[in-house]
Amino acid sequence: MRTASAGALRFSGTLEIFPTGKMSSHTAMRISPARLATFRREAVVKVLTYGTFDLLHIGHLNLLERLKALGDELYVAVSTDEFNHQKGKRCVVSFEDRIRLVSALRCVTGVLPENSWDQKPHDIRRLGIDVLGMGGDWVGKFDAMKAHCKVVYLPRTEGISTTFLRETIMERGTSMVALKAAEARVDHN
Amino acid sequence: MRTASAGALRFSGTLEIFPTGKMSSHTAMRISPARLATFRREAVVKVLTYGTFDLLHIGHLNLLERLKALGDELYVAVSTDEFNHQKGKRCVVSFEDRIRLVSALRCVTGVLPENSWDQKPHDIRRLGIDVLGMGGDWVGKFDAMKAHCKVVYLPRTEGISTTFLRETIMERGTSMVALKAAEARVDHN
Repeated sequence: MRTASAGALRFSGTLEIFPTGKMSSHTAMRISPARLATFRREAVVKVLTYGTFDLLHIGHLNLLERLKALGDELYVAVSTDEFNHQKGKRCVVSFEDRIRLVSALRCVTGVLPENSWDQKPHDIRRLGIDVLGMGGDWVGKFDAMKAHCKVVYLPRTEGISTTFLRETIMERGTSMVALKAAEARVDHN
Repeated sequence: MRTASAGALRFSGTLEIFPTGKMSSHTAMRISPARLATFRREAVVKVLTYGTFDLLHIGHLNLLERLKALGDELYVAVSTDEFNHQKGKRCVVSFEDRIRLVSALRCVTGVLPENSWDQKPHDIRRLGIDVLGMGGDWVGKFDAMKAHCKVVYLPRTEGISTTFLRETIMERGTSMVALKAAEARVDHN
């Protein structure tokens, strides 16, 4: 199931093509099925990634934009609340909202739910994925997928993460509570 | 400075046009400058909004997508950290990150910084804005702008706000701290 994005090349059946890429109806050479398969693969490069994307931040965006730059189309599997529960994680933002926010990004072609650890080979085949791209915190973890497509790990943005955002909010909130308590004491005295 | 988006109509100088909208080079009637001005205004409808967009959430996205649906192009002015400081607000996410996240949304045509309360008439004129759209929490506050363009207030999404996110994180964090303290006590006993 390989669909081309608007403006991208789209092929069906055999293709008559010159080595230069120019097509003609009268002086064409027939391309071999093997070369056509390569050409098809080169025509629209599809990238896939997996993530939670809780409290969407600049680190997420940087990673998604870098992944998109590896190809023409970027597909993002967003972990469901049930899958996070299995992993012992709990998001601030619901699955429905996380997947809508990710799909609203210009660099994202399509989204799908991530329900389990072992759906990757099925997704790669079904979507015709060329590149599986993950953040640098996963280096080596998905090398088994090299049997199905190219696998790359891209560096994460320094100094930003969902955990960092949570902790910043906690710290500021705690100092705000302490400040209000101090103000209340001053008011009382 | 009125630029048409891809696929939108673009005019320069006078226009030869039929009342039906069909153009012809030999049996055309000339449109009046006044009608042309109206037509130009109708060709690309530009919407402008202002906001902070801290911890980008589904309420922001809903509002921006509803605003975009009012026209063809959506411009978003994002408040700077300095302007927030003047208002006594402090964001979790920096201005640079907030404006990049907003500009990465498919529904957003362009972004600009919001530095002061009184820049609106200048922005409206400079960008050729047709509609100023704000969230329902601002009803009536920007009616003075009706001298410059149409002003609309759209309802906010129930049950979500940056404050709600902050409070959810604080509450969960506090109960997590209490839980860990309780666990520590159990371990100790």
